[in-house]
Amino acid sequence: MVQRKPPIRKLVVVGAGLIGGSLAKGLKERQCCEEVVAVVRREKVARRAVEIGVADRAVLSLSDVASELNGDDLIFIAVPTLAVPQVLAGIKGTVSSEVTITDGASVKGSVAEAVFEVYGEFPEQVVLGHPIAGSEQSGVDAANPNLYVNHRVILTPASTTGASHLHKVAQVWQSVGAEVVEMSIAEHDQVLGATSHLPHAIAYSLVDTLAHDIDNPNIFRYAAGGFRDFTRIASSDPLMWHDIMQANKSGVLESLDLFMSNLKRLRRAIEDGDSGYLLETFTRAKTARDRYIHSQVKREPA
Amino acid sequence: MVQRKPPIRKLVVVGAGLIGGSLAKGLKERQCCEEVVAVVRREKVARRAVEIGVADRAVLSLSDVASELNGDDLIFIAVPTLAVPQVLAGIKGTVSSEVTITDGASVKGSVAEAVFEVYGEFPEQVVLGHPIAGSEQSGVDAANPNLYVNHRVILTPASTTGASHLHKVAQVWQSVGAEVVEMSIAEHDQVLGATSHLPHAIAYSLVDTLAHDIDNPNIFRYAAGGFRDFTRIASSDPLMWHDIMQANKSGVLESLDLFMSNLKRLRRAIEDGDSGYLLETFTRAKTARDRYIHSQVKREPA
Repeated sequence: MVQRKPPIRKLVVVGAGLIGGSLAKGLKERQCCEEVVAVVRREKVARRAVEIGVADRAVLSLSDVASELNGDDLIFIAVPTLAVPQVLAGIKGTVSSEVTITDGASVKGSVAEAVFEVYGEFPEQVVLGHPIAGSEQSGVDAANPNLYVNHRVILTPASTTGASHLHKVAQVWQSVGAEVVEMSIAEHDQVLGATSHLPHAIAYSLVDTLAHDIDNPNIFRYAAGGFRDFTRIASSDPLMWHDIMQANKSGVLESLDLFMSNLKRLRRAIEDGDSGYLLETFTRAKTARDRYIHSQVKREPA
Repeated sequence: MVQRKPPIRKLVVVGAGLIGGSLAKGLKERQCCEEVVAVVRREKVARRAVEIGVADRAVLSLSDVASELNGDDLIFIAVPTLAVPQVLAGIKGTVSSEVTITDGASVKGSVAEAVFEVYGEFPEQVVLGHPIAGSEQSGVDAANPNLYVNHRVILTPASTTGASHLHKVAQVWQSVGAEVVEMSIAEHDQVLGATSHLPHAIAYSLVDTLAHDIDNPNIFRYAAGGFRDFTRIASSDPLMWHDIMQANKSGVLESLDLFMSNLKRLRRAIEDGDSGYLLETFTRAKTARDRYIHSQVKREPA
């Protein structure tokens, strides 16, 4: 496959965990930028990021690199959702308005609000986005240059977002193998609230119920194979998911209420021995899930 | 590995789906019995079972084979949970009291009740059991001779169960690679209610909520990778899970109520912005889940 070089010179990645580190490593390995600078909080992570090839240079403050940046460069904010506003505040005033700024936070409404609060408007240079990829691993060592291959990245441009900035961010994601789609902020937060944030809330709550509320020390010992997959997402980073549940509160609560109401109805059917309802619901769910898997298989190249 | 031949001559497997077919194929491929006879309901399945090597012979009624059986033989009842009583009724009176009888139903309390109802007592020859293995696949073509390798089989002997029958059933399972453990019927139904039946109820309800209750035709389109694993069990056989939810009603309702109460508390914490509760719950769940995975990894041979 012929890979066009995306038009960026420096990538500044703020946060060198799974999400930021994987984009950095992906661009570096594909020689799609001249330099990657990681901005991290701890000296130890800074050393490690350079050591394992996530970044060419690592600094402890954005101000160490801000004045070097121009219109050829991109800042990728890849910190937990609730830490984004602070990073934005640090960018404003120190970084040229020509530099493209994007992020990878899992919630877009709260980040958009932070942009308005910090800038008093939605600047042309800001392109909010969300790569739909991840794993229950976290930290700089989890960085994977192929994490985004065949994964979708949702960009949620505002009406004032500059076309050239949007184009640049899309090209960067495409250069590491991702498929870029656009969506409104409201739709993003509804869809992800239902298909990602809700399942995480459920998985955490299920495992906590078994570990904490059921009076049987051997409860996990005889868990069947399906349990392992079903609870995988409960091994995700607690701080990251704390932030997401707070940042997308209304989206999460909306889908959680629909789920709790559906589950309550299912509970009644089990109690009443309502075979018709049970069979109908299980069959409808199986059909929907099988259809989803079929559509995913079609998407993935052979 | 030296494989001792288990002391059975004929295996009669009633139901040649994933569970029954996999034991049959597993024993046949390891030459651990002289003949496998499958008892199935449809001519088409009977032909297919012989064609793909699940059985040496397939019949449409247990009465076609009942009179051939003696103390060297084993009947494995592998039909959906609620169909077990009918099979037991067909066995009583036609099969010698020397023949060992076991089952693979996911719920043990309801099957034990059926044994009492049919026999008026719990005969020596009956050994109830449950292989903790499965997949979202079903039907005769899903039969896999290695399905039980490194999986646990829980046997729930009654006080009247004959030691030689119990020993024979344990040996049969061990010969296809399973680890046999014993447990009371009550503990089995509590543990499986929490770690298997509850997650299936949740998975079906979640997928149904997304497919049916949320007003967005593209809801599955942008689902993240974790969603695929989290919902895998919602592709399981609806009839089988209908039966399980009915057969283990009290066990399922007990764990469902604990889960719903935990989830309700989590919902309140999200609404109230109770960071402490969110972080504590997510961390506790992650710790429990990571510990579970660690114990599983230790169990599996390298």
